[in-house]
Amino acid sequence: MTTPPGSNQPRIDIKRIEADINAIARFGFNEEDRGVYRQGFSPEDMAARQWLRDRMGELGLDHRMDGAGNVIGRYGAEGAGADKPAIVIASHLDSVPAGGIFDGVLGVVAGLEVIRTMQDAGITPNYPIEVIATSEEEGRFGGMLGAQALTGNLTREWLEGAADEHGLALKDAMADAGLDYLEALHAYRRPETLHAFLELHVEQGPVLDTEKTTIGVVEGISGVFKWMVRLKGKADHAGTAPMHLRSDALMGMVDFAHEIPRIIDEEGTDKSRITIGHVALKPGFPHTVPGEAEFTIVGRDLDEEVMTRLADSCRKVLESISRRHGLKFDYEQMSWLAPAYCDEGIVALVERNAKALDYSYKIMPSGAGHDVQFFTALTRTGLIFVPSVGGVSHAPDEWTHWSDIERGAQLLCNCVLELACASEQVTPLEQSIAR
Amino acid sequence: MTTPPGSNQPRIDIKRIEADINAIARFGFNEEDRGVYRQGFSPEDMAARQWLRDRMGELGLDHRMDGAGNVIGRYGAEGAGADKPAIVIASHLDSVPAGGIFDGVLGVVAGLEVIRTMQDAGITPNYPIEVIATSEEEGRFGGMLGAQALTGNLTREWLEGAADEHGLALKDAMADAGLDYLEALHAYRRPETLHAFLELHVEQGPVLDTEKTTIGVVEGISGVFKWMVRLKGKADHAGTAPMHLRSDALMGMVDFAHEIPRIIDEEGTDKSRITIGHVALKPGFPHTVPGEAEFTIVGRDLDEEVMTRLADSCRKVLESISRRHGLKFDYEQMSWLAPAYCDEGIVALVERNAKALDYSYKIMPSGAGHDVQFFTALTRTGLIFVPSVGGVSHAPDEWTHWSDIERGAQLLCNCVLELACASEQVTPLEQSIAR
Repeated sequence: MTTPPGSNQPRIDIKRIEADINAIARFGFNEEDRGVYRQGFSPEDMAARQWLRDRMGELGLDHRMDGAGNVIGRYGAEGAGADKPAIVIASHLDSVPAGGIFDGVLGVVAGLEVIRTMQDAGITPNYPIEVIATSEEEGRFGGMLGAQALTGNLTREWLEGAADEHGLALKDAMADAGLDYLEALHAYRRPETLHAFLELHVEQGPVLDTEKTTIGVVEGISGVFKWMVRLKGKADHAGTAPMHLRSDALMGMVDFAHEIPRIIDEEGTDKSRITIGHVALKPGFPHTVPGEAEFTIVGRDLDEEVMTRLADSCRKVLESISRRHGLKFDYEQMSWLAPAYCDEGIVALVERNAKALDYSYKIMPSGAGHDVQFFTALTRTGLIFVPSVGGVSHAPDEWTHWSDIERGAQLLCNCVLELACASEQVTPLEQSIAR
Repeated sequence: MTTPPGSNQPRIDIKRIEADINAIARFGFNEEDRGVYRQGFSPEDMAARQWLRDRMGELGLDHRMDGAGNVIGRYGAEGAGADKPAIVIASHLDSVPAGGIFDGVLGVVAGLEVIRTMQDAGITPNYPIEVIATSEEEGRFGGMLGAQALTGNLTREWLEGAADEHGLALKDAMADAGLDYLEALHAYRRPETLHAFLELHVEQGPVLDTEKTTIGVVEGISGVFKWMVRLKGKADHAGTAPMHLRSDALMGMVDFAHEIPRIIDEEGTDKSRITIGHVALKPGFPHTVPGEAEFTIVGRDLDEEVMTRLADSCRKVLESISRRHGLKFDYEQMSWLAPAYCDEGIVALVERNAKALDYSYKIMPSGAGHDVQFFTALTRTGLIFVPSVGGVSHAPDEWTHWSDIERGAQLLCNCVLELACASEQVTPLEQSIAR
């Protein structure tokens, strides 16, 4: 196979990572709320992309921006290796409004640091290494544009219809950023150009921080379904309608919500999540029994069969409660996204290297979406998490300790080295992504 | 005491009532949604008041509009009786937007019919009888202006601050209707000018219709408290936050709502109501665990001690649930209105007359507010309900069968006759309202 990583491995330099993260944080930083405003294709986002290209240039990488706004820097294998498929280290540079400084940026900066570390150690990889800063991962325009473009999950129709919440069309935002939206359709990377895809990201959840664990070895991105549920009863005067003569739509929702823990206990796993995040009552007056309750159900699990069982159970419980309360029940399934699995070989590689480095780690799902999910069907993928303090994400007080950043980047570096220095593909692609 | 009512009593004429109700319905009737739009002090409302004064004039009543817009028609006792306190039959003429044709109007029209019936029978009452159409009962400007003015529950400050939901000031609306708002402060009726106050109203609830009962003998208006509750947890990503690490503010609300039936079973009565009519979540996004839930609790009972027990229990349950879910809990008591009791003597009078007429009846509270509640402290009051089909109220499809209207009006007539023809006050005022 390959050389096991050990103490003689090249060491990444956390000071360089810290400097890069702080440099990128300045693009879109708001002094008032201390948040980052670097939404996809904003001037701040495009300036950060240019900054990255300048750094890639300084490192002697071939660098370019593709038609979707992805910045790609390539540290080429020499000679025959130059034509081999690339090991991609990717994450994004755009932020949500009032976001934190690590989300996405960490994975890009760590990629640069891996290359710098290899250069310092005089290592020439057997496979080219590409650092990619994807565009518009945070969904300002409703998708993950950069990753979708790279993996061919993009249509002209979608590009022409997408708009942000203020009604600004994606194609206009891209034009303002100097990009022709039709060029995004040329960004597709054929699978044979990819050897593996690795991403380092902050967890954006409380699990690692709560369990005092340094590394999350992500086995896959949970699938997710989203329902819009409507319960219709009767809007009565809250004073004149006795409790036993009401058809209170809110109380139907309440009884359903009360069953969520049981539904998960009976049909789910410890990776299951069911959330009611939005509730709207009609008429919504304090003195009126709610005649209508509209609410969302968002369910997740890493196993699509479990998702199906959770969804079935939600429907049954809602039907039974509606009968009991004299309510009409209907729902619309807004979306159903199947889980996306990381490559078993890469998961094993990350786990092995975490063990060798003596880092505490946990095999876990990702409940949030990431660029990596679009690559799971095309190449071997891996995703590494480092802890988010208090689980805070998409907020100015997002934080990850530098010591955890250092470990995450070192683990990424060791994994890339093991992949890059192997003379043969460890696992045939077809076998590995068949799961 | 007085002559018991019997089959020789004068009979009211339902055809005249039906004609009057249909005539008033035309003021503000909307052909499209079939609802009545006769909000307080609107041109439609003022036109209906003028129509009523014209009818009063035809009946030979002394009639006037007071400074608050109340229309008062007086059927005077002759001779020495002319100076006696009046028996008031009152309700309102204004409607909510898209209201029904009976709400309020019934009580006014029935008052006219009682007087017509007495005139037809050649009965001269021992006490003057006044029919009052109160103004602005539906709370367009946040109160019950007419009844407040008549009972002295009005301040200049309130008059000058009141506005409707579109920001139109009460004083401007009154000016547009040809009224000087300061004159409303002159509408106060001293208690010694009142002998009794009777109101006939549609139930606006489902109890009588469900129980196939014709008459509701109202013993009092339930007291009501209104809370605005805030539960604060933590807004987490619905995918990354495991169920056991959440502080989900909505689930705190849900657990509280689930306890409402138990709270009423343990601390309340069959007259207790607890309603959550308004819920607002922050941030309210489908993919975010609600960090904050704001909701109203409206509690009612006919006994203020029970109200206190219900409120105490709500607070305890919310405190305990907040501890369990790791939530911060606070609430604001927006209002606390004590119950208002009808006069025991009048309740007995109404019950006795319902029995004599062989009408099915039920002693019950009113969960909705009515003009009568402001008079309970000043004079002997009674409120009679007739069934609302399906309990529908404040909607175009509000309906009460004409046969029930007929019975309600006949009962009102018999009660007024018994009061008006007695030569002495049945119960000393002080004793009667002391409850």
